[in-house]
Amino acid sequence: MDDAKPFRPEARNPRGFGDRRARDLAAERSILASVSEVYERYGFEALDTPAFEYADALGKFLPDSDRPNEGVFALTDDDDQWMALRYDLTAPLARFAAQNWETLPKPFRRYAYGPVWRNEKPGPGRFREFIQCDADTVGSARPEADAEIIAMAVEGLEAAGLPRGQAVVKINNRKLLNGLLSTAGVGSEGQKLAVLRAVDKLDRLGPDGVRLLLGEGRLDDSGDYTKGAGLGAKGIEAVIAFTAAGRGGRSETLDAIAAAIGGSAEGDEGLAELQAIGVALGGLGVGEDRAVFDPSVVRGLEYYTGPVFEAEALIEDETGKRISFGSVGGGGRYDDLVARFTGERTPATGFSFGVSRLAATLRAANRTPGGEARGPVVVIAFSQDHMAEYFAVASELRAAGIPAEVYLGQSGMKAQMKYADRRRSPFAIMLGEDELAAGEVSIKDLDEGLAASKSLASNELWKETRPGQYAVKRAELVAALKQRLGSRA
Amino acid sequence: MDDAKPFRPEARNPRGFGDRRARDLAAERSILASVSEVYERYGFEALDTPAFEYADALGKFLPDSDRPNEGVFALTDDDDQWMALRYDLTAPLARFAAQNWETLPKPFRRYAYGPVWRNEKPGPGRFREFIQCDADTVGSARPEADAEIIAMAVEGLEAAGLPRGQAVVKINNRKLLNGLLSTAGVGSEGQKLAVLRAVDKLDRLGPDGVRLLLGEGRLDDSGDYTKGAGLGAKGIEAVIAFTAAGRGGRSETLDAIAAAIGGSAEGDEGLAELQAIGVALGGLGVGEDRAVFDPSVVRGLEYYTGPVFEAEALIEDETGKRISFGSVGGGGRYDDLVARFTGERTPATGFSFGVSRLAATLRAANRTPGGEARGPVVVIAFSQDHMAEYFAVASELRAAGIPAEVYLGQSGMKAQMKYADRRRSPFAIMLGEDELAAGEVSIKDLDEGLAASKSLASNELWKETRPGQYAVKRAELVAALKQRLGSRA
Repeated sequence: MDDAKPFRPEARNPRGFGDRRARDLAAERSILASVSEVYERYGFEALDTPAFEYADALGKFLPDSDRPNEGVFALTDDDDQWMALRYDLTAPLARFAAQNWETLPKPFRRYAYGPVWRNEKPGPGRFREFIQCDADTVGSARPEADAEIIAMAVEGLEAAGLPRGQAVVKINNRKLLNGLLSTAGVGSEGQKLAVLRAVDKLDRLGPDGVRLLLGEGRLDDSGDYTKGAGLGAKGIEAVIAFTAAGRGGRSETLDAIAAAIGGSAEGDEGLAELQAIGVALGGLGVGEDRAVFDPSVVRGLEYYTGPVFEAEALIEDETGKRISFGSVGGGGRYDDLVARFTGERTPATGFSFGVSRLAATLRAANRTPGGEARGPVVVIAFSQDHMAEYFAVASELRAAGIPAEVYLGQSGMKAQMKYADRRRSPFAIMLGEDELAAGEVSIKDLDEGLAASKSLASNELWKETRPGQYAVKRAELVAALKQRLGSRA
Repeated sequence: MDDAKPFRPEARNPRGFGDRRARDLAAERSILASVSEVYERYGFEALDTPAFEYADALGKFLPDSDRPNEGVFALTDDDDQWMALRYDLTAPLARFAAQNWETLPKPFRRYAYGPVWRNEKPGPGRFREFIQCDADTVGSARPEADAEIIAMAVEGLEAAGLPRGQAVVKINNRKLLNGLLSTAGVGSEGQKLAVLRAVDKLDRLGPDGVRLLLGEGRLDDSGDYTKGAGLGAKGIEAVIAFTAAGRGGRSETLDAIAAAIGGSAEGDEGLAELQAIGVALGGLGVGEDRAVFDPSVVRGLEYYTGPVFEAEALIEDETGKRISFGSVGGGGRYDDLVARFTGERTPATGFSFGVSRLAATLRAANRTPGGEARGPVVVIAFSQDHMAEYFAVASELRAAGIPAEVYLGQSGMKAQMKYADRRRSPFAIMLGEDELAAGEVSIKDLDEGLAASKSLASNELWKETRPGQYAVKRAELVAALKQRLGSRA
């Protein structure tokens, strides 16, 4: 290596980590503001925990915790303790609640938002850093606490930009399937987990594929073999019948579930919880079009102990039927997470919006929360001699609440206009020698100019008529811009 | 180890990482919203880069980069590339600008906020994760670009809650001291850096301590010896005279600086830049009470190449004199950061608010941006039989924009009132059997109740009179609460 040649790193993002520009950020911030406002209206207080937790405090609760690095970004501190970046906002809440339990108001209701990190294989649209926005109630075993979480999810979806009919929250209860499996004689936790994982693939594989995974196993198209849960034929059909018990109305579904699980202490407990959730949802005014019971919902995380929730965006297919456009959040009851620290079971329930996912969904549905961002008004810099005057104009506009800037590069007029276009500026302001002499300012309406340049026949004609360009008295500039900005809002 | 006894991790924060509760977050969010609004008004667009950068892209620009781990949290990705968490928002911007230079509007003006991480020794009030909020202009060499950055810092301080007279931005230029050192025959970069570090300690050590560090070296009280920059007596006094050249007015200071640096090409260039910044600050309406030239300002970061800025909060001492209450932000011109990637010098300048520091400063000054957070209205849960009615009341209040919740624990009346107090609720709502029968609701004003309980002689009397408790018709609840909330706002 030549010492005289300096090292030049390549400017690139780490794999699976993206940059977000103004438009995406506006959408994301709009979602966070709307959902936070809902959470606060329900009496949840803000909390922010750090990016790092000690690895032992995080535990091993990720869906693919069988991978060697457990899906987290971990490192050792200089005292040799392992720390890891949080992979969700729930595990840090459990740590916080256990640590401060004595002094917290109970039940403790908090919301939180921020990035989480997963050390997973990146892919197109699959990032290793993304934003979540959660609300949780710690210290209440009441089904009403679950119902409230669901009601907030429903209201949050609407506030974020998915109105009624474009989203639904699906509700299930882990105890139902557990009860059914107990009745069917399935004993080990490992086997139950295998059944959960099989049911979780229902969307992707359909009932027949899931039947194979519930039984001996399944060979997929690529030749990979997945060992099955080892249920017998009767058990398999009982599970499939259970997952298909979803009906239109909430009480019809509960009846169908009752028939499908066939009676067991744990199953009945789960059913009673769902019934109580249904009653509370009624009291909270959450209609059957916005929250449904659906026994096919599983949720990947192992730590759920009772009700689980999944929020799905809906879209109309060709026949007008509303079909799922993907999950935009989920949650459930997890009564054991705080107990990991304290040894005492502490009931808890919560919901997490996948904010990045929700923003992408809204973008795909051609909705842009936060609106299309416009750039600032650009004051053209003709001459170094008059910079103070340009700055005075920009200051005046800013003081009137109009974003504005003086062009600060070294390029000429044409490049400055191109710059204003790239910034999506609504107007360029020109104070050339002529304008200064006349006590005037020229306003160039860049949208009009663009439209005219497309329709006018020749460049010459364009130059002559100067479409979208108007002169106003210097003192009337702010009023003129306000009027023009107002009329297009 | 006994296998039957499960492992219980201790619930604790990693060293140097704190949790932030509602009050602190409200302050922080209020600062971010105010400062972002200023940045946007100046035409800066939002950008968010990921937490991680490749280590080679971050470079070694931290003040204490002589430590072995270079002050960052780093780990290897599964393809063996080193990644590190960003330690500021400037290095990621340089990477982003180099990566996207062709397609960016130029000059590129962006603002950004978010956490940064420093792997430093934690201490009281010294965290390893904190929030910064930056604005930078990349691609403009004009001193007007620096002036604009300074104007935004000044306006941002005011928007964040430090009005005129309670904050000042101090401006210096690295080229001045460099020019002075060249004239004094100081050649090596290492020696120049040693001089900068010595001057940076002026606040802490005073001129005599700095004289030692500029010369042979200094033995501190703990017995540690710091090798000096090795200047001769004449050079030492020239540097000290330079740092003391700050005067009241901006132009007086520039005259004093001109006299102190005694002429050199680089020094004259630095002086001309400050002069141009002064003119532009005038055009931007930034008065001499809010931005001053101060040759004692250094800024720790090595990458600055010209003007440097430091924002200080001010407080009145006993004599009424305004003294520094600590740095709350800083910045400067860094023309070489993008060149690290591209090989082409790209002029850039920016400013960074230390948001966590600013929030702590405002708290210490008894100002709480975002206001004192009040909790939600709490609907007392007397009986499971009437939960639906409690929920209906809470829903009504929320629909009217009043944060509200139903108590969802299992405790009795007294604990529920204590809960409401802990949440800093303004009101508790009671629907007991009596109220339900009468079609009424009882409102308990918790502030009034608290005040009365302190002043009343006996607990018995308190029970009889029920201070701060009022009955209203069920249908008039929302209107009654709105009126009471309004009258105390």
